[in-house]
Amino acid sequence: MERMSQTHVPRVVIVGGGFGGLNAARSLSRLPVEITLIDKRNFHLFQPLLYQVATGGLSPADIAAPLRDALRDDKNVTVLLDEVISIDPLNQCVAAKSGRLHYDFLIVATGAVNHYFDNDTWSANAPALKTIEDATDIRRRILQAFENAERETDPELRREWLRFVIVGAGPTGVELAGAIGEIATDTLRRSFRRIRPGGSEIFLVEGGPRVLPTFPSDLSTKAERSLIRLGVRTITGVIVTRIEDGSVTMKDSQGAERQIDARTVIWAAGVRASPLGRPLAEALGAEIDNSGRVHVSSDLSIPNHPEIFVIGDLAWCDQAGQRLPGTCPVAMQQGWYTADVIGARLTGKATPPFRYNDKGTMATIGRNKAVVDLGWIRFGGTFAWLTWLFIHLLYLVSYRSRILVAIQWAFQYFSFNRSARIITEQPGAPER
Amino acid sequence: MERMSQTHVPRVVIVGGGFGGLNAARSLSRLPVEITLIDKRNFHLFQPLLYQVATGGLSPADIAAPLRDALRDDKNVTVLLDEVISIDPLNQCVAAKSGRLHYDFLIVATGAVNHYFDNDTWSANAPALKTIEDATDIRRRILQAFENAERETDPELRREWLRFVIVGAGPTGVELAGAIGEIATDTLRRSFRRIRPGGSEIFLVEGGPRVLPTFPSDLSTKAERSLIRLGVRTITGVIVTRIEDGSVTMKDSQGAERQIDARTVIWAAGVRASPLGRPLAEALGAEIDNSGRVHVSSDLSIPNHPEIFVIGDLAWCDQAGQRLPGTCPVAMQQGWYTADVIGARLTGKATPPFRYNDKGTMATIGRNKAVVDLGWIRFGGTFAWLTWLFIHLLYLVSYRSRILVAIQWAFQYFSFNRSARIITEQPGAPER
Repeated sequence: MERMSQTHVPRVVIVGGGFGGLNAARSLSRLPVEITLIDKRNFHLFQPLLYQVATGGLSPADIAAPLRDALRDDKNVTVLLDEVISIDPLNQCVAAKSGRLHYDFLIVATGAVNHYFDNDTWSANAPALKTIEDATDIRRRILQAFENAERETDPELRREWLRFVIVGAGPTGVELAGAIGEIATDTLRRSFRRIRPGGSEIFLVEGGPRVLPTFPSDLSTKAERSLIRLGVRTITGVIVTRIEDGSVTMKDSQGAERQIDARTVIWAAGVRASPLGRPLAEALGAEIDNSGRVHVSSDLSIPNHPEIFVIGDLAWCDQAGQRLPGTCPVAMQQGWYTADVIGARLTGKATPPFRYNDKGTMATIGRNKAVVDLGWIRFGGTFAWLTWLFIHLLYLVSYRSRILVAIQWAFQYFSFNRSARIITEQPGAPER
Repeated sequence: MERMSQTHVPRVVIVGGGFGGLNAARSLSRLPVEITLIDKRNFHLFQPLLYQVATGGLSPADIAAPLRDALRDDKNVTVLLDEVISIDPLNQCVAAKSGRLHYDFLIVATGAVNHYFDNDTWSANAPALKTIEDATDIRRRILQAFENAERETDPELRREWLRFVIVGAGPTGVELAGAIGEIATDTLRRSFRRIRPGGSEIFLVEGGPRVLPTFPSDLSTKAERSLIRLGVRTITGVIVTRIEDGSVTMKDSQGAERQIDARTVIWAAGVRASPLGRPLAEALGAEIDNSGRVHVSSDLSIPNHPEIFVIGDLAWCDQAGQRLPGTCPVAMQQGWYTADVIGARLTGKATPPFRYNDKGTMATIGRNKAVVDLGWIRFGGTFAWLTWLFIHLLYLVSYRSRILVAIQWAFQYFSFNRSARIITEQPGAPER
């Protein structure tokens, strides 16, 4: 890769093509700058629908837009499929595997990774949902569990195959639990001859006092009621202390232990900032919080490094005394804002500090069921579900994805079916 | 698994859920028999469109129908996700990994596997296209080659990344070469900033004297002309003698050698019968041909074993002195026929020998281009392409797949785009 010297056209390097990075690139493309977007994957992933891939409702490509497609017409944007190793703020360089790249402005938007709170060995028995590969892995485990139950003759082992534990009752955990409930009660109802999938037990385990702990409590109650109707049992106020092959152990605030013997466990209990955060913060003398996020100034740049911005899940950004959550709307707004700041800097203008415009949060539980909190109004039920549907279709990146997803949802709704129920990449199994 | 003793309800065991096995199961479900369909994958794969997954046009789930879905309403069919290890014709038992299964009638339809003619080491550098995993692997190699070319600064290495060799110019090889041609000239035209994908070199290498050697020669000529227009160069009458990482060596009938330095090589030169064929034939005293197919009688049963049928790509079946090809229509018709034979046996009736009704063959080369040979008429061009489109949509197993595939093709046609262009399961690369 050529080492470019600083010319009259300012060079912006963006690391990460998620909601923050992609939206920054799109906004910046209208400015007289040269932009390079580096990502180690060749697609932008629509993470809010990842749980639908994990539960066989959608295909990976339905929620993954090739970055080159999304930025095809932005002629001043170069997409580079590469991994950034380190950042050299002194020389204003980014070191990627294939070479070094000079920047005048740098936007770091590498997001978050799964986090097991010092219990990394749990990942083998309790996979988490962050990448496309995670989603197809979880899909395989869920579908394979029903297959194994069908083959199993020991009644106790059969029950273990039909027992599912989801750790963490934030939106992802709730959505996964609801979808598995639907698979068991509706999708697979007539598919097996020996087992009754409707008799599956689905446990949703949460450390906080209620499901969706960041939502208003009346919405938590609504969500819990919908989950129960789908056969999901919620266990709140417990901390998971051990995950082994075939069992999850938890402890409540009184110290009482409980073990659930289940063959399928999914981790939805936490993420932390991507590993690039810590060395970056150290090199820049920036603060990081205990989930590895980098503290940014009110314009999202690093203190003493006005040319470096950190946005999205990697950024520790406080507003009115509250830390902003690691959500898509925050990342998108920070991407747009950063482009505005760079535009203003080029013309010597000042910019007001970043202000997150919270349009609300929502989570879906299953067929016709969701909870929506818009701040000024909150509601559940069918209308909430339609709102969820509409918003998610609206924000899907490509026009084609929108239509494909809409059609698959329509099929799913009317047929109770989920057709992307294929088991792929079985370790060791596929004979070529 | 329970060992069932023979009761008054005859038990039919089908091994393999491809075109032969699935259609046999569906036809048999109308008879008073108990059917068990065993497959090691949980889906029926629509193989004729596998090349579209390999070239980013469709998602795996679009061409894979869960077997339990396809047979959900056939209450006398049990689907078992398992692998058959051996067959014991003396005790009329099939041994699968999870247990033994008694049969009164056995249908073996395990299909074909990739075949490198005693050069199995070639598979690492020249993957073949038979499974969903093969398709996503080839998709990754093709897309990654363009990415690597974009990053490469050495002009010679860059050219090697933009050089593709497809070995074998049967329908699969022709379809792959045509699709890669389209990707290079149309799909990726505006996606890169440093390379010109349209300058890619695509070689289609064939041992026979012309492309599509089993088609009438005028259609071969038409196909070759269409390929050339897509930038594909055909090399016929050569045998590949060596495949290494980065090069393919071939030899013509005069013994002259030629080496092509290319980073992406795809093997489309041959399949052989699945590994279950040989031990089965040995146990039954049946003949096998040199691609491992088992010789069957005129009613598709094994000589001296009227209760065992072999159908589809595993069967060596001659008709009018010609060996029937390993194609979907042959397998489907054999599946239906076998169900008829079993039905006739149950009522003591006789059945005429199997007769393949050849409705024709076809291959597509790309946008608006295909060749169709219906025996009484043959044609190429746009009408052939529409015929190909219609027939393939018609035979897709699920209603949902038909609509999804049709929409994706419509998008692809009008936008010149292929949206399933995601690189997944990069060996070692994805950081979780």
